[in-house]
Amino acid sequence: MPGPSFSDVCQARLRLAGRIHRTPLFHSQQLDDLAGCRLWFKCENLQKTGSFKVRGALNAVLSLTPAEAGRGVVTHSSGNHGAALAWAARQRGIPAWIVVPENTPAVKQRAIENYGGQIIRCAPTLEAREETMRKVQAETGAALIHPYDDDRVIAGQGTAALEALEDAGPVDAILAPVSGGGLLAGTAIAATSALAGIRVIGCEPAGADDAFRSLQSGQLQRNQRTETIADGLRAALCERTFAILREKVHGIVLVSEEEILEALYLAWERLKLVIEPSAAVALAAVLFRRATEGCRSACVILSGGNLDVRAWCRAPLEATTRPTRPSTGPPSAA
Amino acid sequence: MPGPSFSDVCQARLRLAGRIHRTPLFHSQQLDDLAGCRLWFKCENLQKTGSFKVRGALNAVLSLTPAEAGRGVVTHSSGNHGAALAWAARQRGIPAWIVVPENTPAVKQRAIENYGGQIIRCAPTLEAREETMRKVQAETGAALIHPYDDDRVIAGQGTAALEALEDAGPVDAILAPVSGGGLLAGTAIAATSALAGIRVIGCEPAGADDAFRSLQSGQLQRNQRTETIADGLRAALCERTFAILREKVHGIVLVSEEEILEALYLAWERLKLVIEPSAAVALAAVLFRRATEGCRSACVILSGGNLDVRAWCRAPLEATTRPTRPSTGPPSAA
Repeated sequence: MPGPSFSDVCQARLRLAGRIHRTPLFHSQQLDDLAGCRLWFKCENLQKTGSFKVRGALNAVLSLTPAEAGRGVVTHSSGNHGAALAWAARQRGIPAWIVVPENTPAVKQRAIENYGGQIIRCAPTLEAREETMRKVQAETGAALIHPYDDDRVIAGQGTAALEALEDAGPVDAILAPVSGGGLLAGTAIAATSALAGIRVIGCEPAGADDAFRSLQSGQLQRNQRTETIADGLRAALCERTFAILREKVHGIVLVSEEEILEALYLAWERLKLVIEPSAAVALAAVLFRRATEGCRSACVILSGGNLDVRAWCRAPLEATTRPTRPSTGPPSAA
Repeated sequence: MPGPSFSDVCQARLRLAGRIHRTPLFHSQQLDDLAGCRLWFKCENLQKTGSFKVRGALNAVLSLTPAEAGRGVVTHSSGNHGAALAWAARQRGIPAWIVVPENTPAVKQRAIENYGGQIIRCAPTLEAREETMRKVQAETGAALIHPYDDDRVIAGQGTAALEALEDAGPVDAILAPVSGGGLLAGTAIAATSALAGIRVIGCEPAGADDAFRSLQSGQLQRNQRTETIADGLRAALCERTFAILREKVHGIVLVSEEEILEALYLAWERLKLVIEPSAAVALAAVLFRRATEGCRSACVILSGGNLDVRAWCRAPLEATTRPTRPSTGPPSAA
């Protein structure tokens, strides 16, 4: 059987205990009414570094032997995995080299550096990334921690589902977004072992639908190109995650860009939680694609909350165009 | 001594128990670092109806005699108090008439109606509002529940501070925004009785600074006009709340519009919580006006989370301009 076992997920949980947040479950009666189903939201946007990615990254870092750890870790990622690995390495007091394409937004590079990661810039092509990473490995002996093609990472990601199912009690389904498949594979291993009969559903943007096509065709498919605001979901399955999903996942539900955006706004409005577009994909599948049809209850993993708030928001006109009165001044006549 | 007593706040708490959320305290190491002080955020944005206002409204509604309650309640408010009173009345199964200016955004009117409130529209002047309200009272015998000039409301608002101090343990200060002064007065009554020596600090937009000028001059001042994105903070103190604040509050800190906006974005980014501009005012005072100077720890009441997300956000370009690929299609060659 491919991938980590349920016992690997349980061991990961012990390893992570006390080092990361046990994130809460949120609930909204209004979203239940829209979905026709009791929904529990696992708030990984409130996790350390703002996403579930620390679970896998820290589990991998803590699994290294002292000799391996001493040489540090390396990965290529401009997103949540890069920040999470930098944070995880700092917990163990070891260096982390994060290879990022040189066109990565400054705000994301700063996040990695703030967590103590050492940024290595490269040309924005897959070849340049992999060559740069090999070079770092050759020079430093650092251990590669892949964002999802790694059993230790997959086992770590599965711990979110374990916590969610403990807190929610028996549910009919659990839903997670799918990109490289690490979160969904870990979720599937954890949930199907913890709760017999649970449906595990992957949710994917139609604009980056390799998992849907892979499971439909029975052969690993790639994305020719990806077009989605869910910027955390542009990676593609690998053989390892594909094999796990084929065995344990009940289906992949595709959603449109408009549906992702609407689900995002609903989460902000109803849950009062800042989530990133990737995290809205599973909610979109529930609300607009009947992903939980026939279910009385379901867990939805809100995978992260990292987005550039200032790029997304514009203050209402009055904030930017009206002058502000001075802070202090003579009392006016009442 | 003016206003409700500490015992009134404690009774309000028993009355509300099990009917509203005991909202969590949030914490962010990054915000602590910016503030130079341990900060506990009381998340009233996660309260029923999205703001602390249900505390006062429900306490008032539950304090009515059966005969009074049978005739319903009335108020004028286009904001959080209107929605909260509608919700509170529904809990007791009685009608609520909410007088709103006819230029109130449709989204706010819908919120009131969704909670079961009956909207009465009037011309957008204070005179029209009060005349309309008197008319409703004359026709129905409904009890007026004022948003802050009411001891039952003030006592209810004070319950948020009680919970926060229990959960945070001893802190050096507690901060709340001030507008009509109901929340700040209730907070001051609760906090100074619960924890000897605590500093109670009101935070106010410089563009609606009547409380600052009132406390400075020792006489109740009005706002000639208000200019602030903190749309929940445009009301002015009344004699009742002014008297309480004079006695129990240590100071009012003014913040600029730019500071409110920056604090708002920081809360969204660091806490991953959707809060409204009014709720960002106290954080702005801590971060940019040294409101907690000399404090090792403080509670900040995040008063609400109701803002028009869709008006505030613009999706990144790719979401709105790039075409979405069809949901399903033939598997592409891998």
